[in-house]
Amino acid sequence: MNRPVRHTRATTLLIVTVAGALLSVLSGEAAAQEGRRRRGGQQEAQPVELLPEQVASLTKIANERKLNVDDLMAAAKTFTPSGRHDEYVLFSSGGQSGQVYAIGVPSMRLLRTIAVFTPESWQGYGFGGQHDHVLESLKINGTPVNWGDTHHPALSETKGDYDGQFLFIGDKANARLGVIDLRDWDTKQIVKNPLTISDHGAAFVTPNTEYVIEGGQYGTVLGYGYAPPEEYKKSYRGMVTMWKFDRTKGRIDVANSFALELPPYWQDLADAGKNASDGYFFVNSFNVEMATGGVEKGNPPFEAGASKRDMDYLHIIDWRKAEAAFKAGKVKQINGFPVIMLDTSVAEGILHFAPEPKSPHGVDVTPNGQYMVVAGKLDPHVTVYSIEKIKAAIAGKKFTGSDEYGVPVLDFDAVKEAQVELGLGPLHTQFDDKGYAYTSLFLDSAVARWSLGGEYASKHPEQPWKLVHKTPVQYNIGHLCAAEGDTVSPDGRFLISMSKWSVDRFLPTGPLLPQNFQLLDIAQTGTTMPVIYDLPIGVGEPHYCQMIKADKLQTWKVYPEVGWNPLTQQLDPNAPKKGQEGVTREGNKVLVKMTAVRSHFVPEHVEVDEGDEVTWRITTLETAQDATHGFCIGAYNINLSIEPGEYSEVRFVADKAGTYPFYCTEFCSALHLEMMGYLHVKPKAGRAAAGGTDTTSK
Amino acid sequence: MNRPVRHTRATTLLIVTVAGALLSVLSGEAAAQEGRRRRGGQQEAQPVELLPEQVASLTKIANERKLNVDDLMAAAKTFTPSGRHDEYVLFSSGGQSGQVYAIGVPSMRLLRTIAVFTPESWQGYGFGGQHDHVLESLKINGTPVNWGDTHHPALSETKGDYDGQFLFIGDKANARLGVIDLRDWDTKQIVKNPLTISDHGAAFVTPNTEYVIEGGQYGTVLGYGYAPPEEYKKSYRGMVTMWKFDRTKGRIDVANSFALELPPYWQDLADAGKNASDGYFFVNSFNVEMATGGVEKGNPPFEAGASKRDMDYLHIIDWRKAEAAFKAGKVKQINGFPVIMLDTSVAEGILHFAPEPKSPHGVDVTPNGQYMVVAGKLDPHVTVYSIEKIKAAIAGKKFTGSDEYGVPVLDFDAVKEAQVELGLGPLHTQFDDKGYAYTSLFLDSAVARWSLGGEYASKHPEQPWKLVHKTPVQYNIGHLCAAEGDTVSPDGRFLISMSKWSVDRFLPTGPLLPQNFQLLDIAQTGTTMPVIYDLPIGVGEPHYCQMIKADKLQTWKVYPEVGWNPLTQQLDPNAPKKGQEGVTREGNKVLVKMTAVRSHFVPEHVEVDEGDEVTWRITTLETAQDATHGFCIGAYNINLSIEPGEYSEVRFVADKAGTYPFYCTEFCSALHLEMMGYLHVKPKAGRAAAGGTDTTSK
Repeated sequence: MNRPVRHTRATTLLIVTVAGALLSVLSGEAAAQEGRRRRGGQQEAQPVELLPEQVASLTKIANERKLNVDDLMAAAKTFTPSGRHDEYVLFSSGGQSGQVYAIGVPSMRLLRTIAVFTPESWQGYGFGGQHDHVLESLKINGTPVNWGDTHHPALSETKGDYDGQFLFIGDKANARLGVIDLRDWDTKQIVKNPLTISDHGAAFVTPNTEYVIEGGQYGTVLGYGYAPPEEYKKSYRGMVTMWKFDRTKGRIDVANSFALELPPYWQDLADAGKNASDGYFFVNSFNVEMATGGVEKGNPPFEAGASKRDMDYLHIIDWRKAEAAFKAGKVKQINGFPVIMLDTSVAEGILHFAPEPKSPHGVDVTPNGQYMVVAGKLDPHVTVYSIEKIKAAIAGKKFTGSDEYGVPVLDFDAVKEAQVELGLGPLHTQFDDKGYAYTSLFLDSAVARWSLGGEYASKHPEQPWKLVHKTPVQYNIGHLCAAEGDTVSPDGRFLISMSKWSVDRFLPTGPLLPQNFQLLDIAQTGTTMPVIYDLPIGVGEPHYCQMIKADKLQTWKVYPEVGWNPLTQQLDPNAPKKGQEGVTREGNKVLVKMTAVRSHFVPEHVEVDEGDEVTWRITTLETAQDATHGFCIGAYNINLSIEPGEYSEVRFVADKAGTYPFYCTEFCSALHLEMMGYLHVKPKAGRAAAGGTDTTSK
Repeated sequence: MNRPVRHTRATTLLIVTVAGALLSVLSGEAAAQEGRRRRGGQQEAQPVELLPEQVASLTKIANERKLNVDDLMAAAKTFTPSGRHDEYVLFSSGGQSGQVYAIGVPSMRLLRTIAVFTPESWQGYGFGGQHDHVLESLKINGTPVNWGDTHHPALSETKGDYDGQFLFIGDKANARLGVIDLRDWDTKQIVKNPLTISDHGAAFVTPNTEYVIEGGQYGTVLGYGYAPPEEYKKSYRGMVTMWKFDRTKGRIDVANSFALELPPYWQDLADAGKNASDGYFFVNSFNVEMATGGVEKGNPPFEAGASKRDMDYLHIIDWRKAEAAFKAGKVKQINGFPVIMLDTSVAEGILHFAPEPKSPHGVDVTPNGQYMVVAGKLDPHVTVYSIEKIKAAIAGKKFTGSDEYGVPVLDFDAVKEAQVELGLGPLHTQFDDKGYAYTSLFLDSAVARWSLGGEYASKHPEQPWKLVHKTPVQYNIGHLCAAEGDTVSPDGRFLISMSKWSVDRFLPTGPLLPQNFQLLDIAQTGTTMPVIYDLPIGVGEPHYCQMIKADKLQTWKVYPEVGWNPLTQQLDPNAPKKGQEGVTREGNKVLVKMTAVRSHFVPEHVEVDEGDEVTWRITTLETAQDATHGFCIGAYNINLSIEPGEYSEVRFVADKAGTYPFYCTEFCSALHLEMMGYLHVKPKAGRAAAGGTDTTSK
């Protein structure tokens, strides 16, 4: 922990220079040392033994604050002292905020937001003037679409385990996928699905992140087409897209990606097989009724029409066969994108259906890959399928027929392993290291712990496939997330209940309330599973999250070299070096080369003519962790976050005459307010700038 | 706490209807009751007495997590159980995020973000299609400026005390002011300063919120004018604007607002007098050197040039005299805005200067109004001024001369009450209920507690005007905030250190790190003032905050009536009522009248022709707290947050043919995914929509 000391000394020396405060070096150092001492004892903590008077003080505080013993235990399990790091990072979708949120566990502190689909000015994301690469990447057919409905974050995996390298996140509203590099926690790529306007089941990765799976949702005319609702069965379709990921480039490889046409059922969540089920992935569906609503015409609304049948279809997809069909060219181009059509999938044995009760949301594969757990939100059970039985049924052609698009439907009893009655509104299932599964129950407002069978039966004392315990949550839980709970080796210990309504849990924040992320301690077995923390989420409506062990992340503390371009992840030849600063002009094109360092920009004055096209390049010379500068020009809608070592470029037309202060927007030093300069935009000859004070005419 | 029960029953009945799950009513109710029981015992907590085995469990947890005794105490002081509400709300600027953040104290949980200067899609803020009122209000001279650098939030006051009605927030980058109504926590108005591009000292209110004060910062040509830096002294000026606030309308009354011309020193923070100093306000300044930088030309950079002199000028402004001068028409119009020019201010005795050391940031008035505390960041002291001495010096014309703009300068020794040596980099001062002041020390990375004199001397055991204690913080504190710490009656108890650098305090989040809001327990006297919580702020770089007792807020839990327009804060005659739903057309103008209720929209299909101008009006029929719906149309950049009772309108040109699903973006019920419909945009005759699957050609 010497960076701040170095910083303090550096800033202090500056002060010495400009202000002659001689004592400051000593004092700054002293404060830092005191800080280290304060936590120093902490770092190698001696075993605590509470003395009677300490117990008395603790009891006094508890009684003043009306805390009970459970509360004190929960506090001790979650409180994380100054300087102590969390054990896990929860990467959560930000719902309609369009972003991703990183939360530390067990402290449940929001560590950072990562801008993905919505311009975000603190990070300078989408505020780089005209031709900003973020704003360009967010356009759909030329239209700016500057938000997303982020749903399912997916951490990159190696052999079915999180490797901490990349994070993928889907945008349900606009069927887009974002790629985040976890070295600098920065969004590197956004791809738009060429087949459908909106989706749902994204993102899910195959066990080695060969592909990122994007499932659809509402039936649509593939390729953004039009057809009246009367032609639903004929012209509307579902789809699932397999985006090829290039790990070395850290980008989706669009040219080697493809999709599968599916019937116009509403495909929902997906999960990739692993171990025993490696090579498959599974997609839920609902509204196999193909209801088209129309309550305004006296038809039953979608909510009722889509819920009539007792069974929907679990989609079982052999993705290696699909990959082979794609490589063999057995595709049709739709809106310029290769699609394996339904008849091909049937002919090649790529796609099979298994009946699943009833309007399911989640399908979740057990860590060993042997079982698929389907939670049918209108059925009080979860239904467990066996991959061996599925393989055998496919081999033995145990079909009860096919759906009206010709997809073979496997015999339910031939593929079912078990059904476990849990309660009302099962949605999503996660796993731990003790042979338990955890399923969210929306209508019960509860988390159910239940016992797995097969090779897991020996890991817990209970009978296999039985409900063990339900813990109430507040309120209406959607998804849940256990520590590494969807990998081949879950950690147990912690589980997040993503409670969708908070109602009375927190101070009212107007008619719009936060969600409630509740932390459950699942370290014990049996019926012990308390809620130990409530975290309000008042920044969006997160839909789904994943929790990774923090030590798997290899985060950069600063950029590797001064002049680094985060977009290319390498040194940028255009990055101005110290000594190269200045302003040059070719015709009406002005190039500004600038450096930034505590506490000034070079140059401090930039003079241009009204209408000039300005390219403004800035390198920060800082190399100390946390020595971030900002750069903004008022009224020009420009703000950058220039992190240690970073190079940034801004382009704009200086179309507004006047004198515009620019300044550093990050409090970087004691002389931060003095870190500024002026952009002087000289009015075209013959006319004055707006306003102006004539001090002589008084 | 019966809303969720009602919700559960309502949803459940629906499920019963569509799915016949008979048990559900009972189970839903049971879960809710269990939830109440769980916290029920909690609500009327019996005094805790820790049994030996409980102490043992607690000690075991502490040792497993390496917590020391101080940590356990801090945990008990801050942990806030499920359903327990915080005692205070911290309203914090969001810095370059452009937003405001509300944080509960002592739990230090981020309760909600409030969108102000940056479009935010979760709240549907700026995503209402074309002609969106938010996007319109964010334009500056026709240019969209969709971010802000929010600096100083100001709660509305009555008799110098927070009244919990409104919150004002300034945008430094673009010199704008936002007005938030704390009934629904919604931004109602944004005003742009007509004189300057950027500012700093906003917002501060007079004791009864007659005016909202916006101070400037960097010298500029008033009215967005142009002048070369060589003309700095002649043509550049500072300013302070007094925005008249109309409490009944809840809006800034621009027509009755005015500004004062000031010398081109860099005005900084302001504070309004109260009690003894009522009728005055005080503004700091730095760079009275009028340095113009130019390091690129070999001049000293701004940071050095602006720091040469030992004294800057405290601006003492008699705002009632200023108001009289404005009403008497003694103003000049600049860019259409009335400005009291410097010579008038001098002639009318509106403006006086007092010398202040040295590049100060904060000027803060004691609760009794008798003392102004100036923190000069390049001076190890805080300097205390007496309002009695200031008034006497003005009456007795104890001037040492005037500055080069003719403003009389009061004799420093005649107005100074005391100077207190605290340490390096004093920035900002707050007060408690025990006669102490608290000053942030940026370079020391510490919070200083010091003793006040005068009538406060009897409230504490220490000598007056003495440093009492310094608590180290991590790291580089900017502003600080005590509970109601700038009102006439501070609460003491809690203090926030807005530490600007976090460095090693949290898990690294890439090169961009969060700030660190540290909670200090200031309930004790003397040298006891521990840090009890570290909160990472990874959503922006907050600059300043205010902490209000939660019970002062009269927040609406839902909108007062169904069909409420938050913009006008009344029922909207255009709000579609149940039974009025439908689609009508006049030429190419289409009007959609829609209602929303769990779990469907009416109508579910909307068919328009390519190029139609669509006006889409939605009323939610929900009245239960937290029953919020969203409404989005993919690829059209539209998303709304429709809170219980709310009416919203969207306008757009249907310029993209195709079939667009719209859906509810808030997880509102078990059948939330079924709450959707289709916008069918029929292609112009003669051309097909993009893409499309020809299912016959296979």
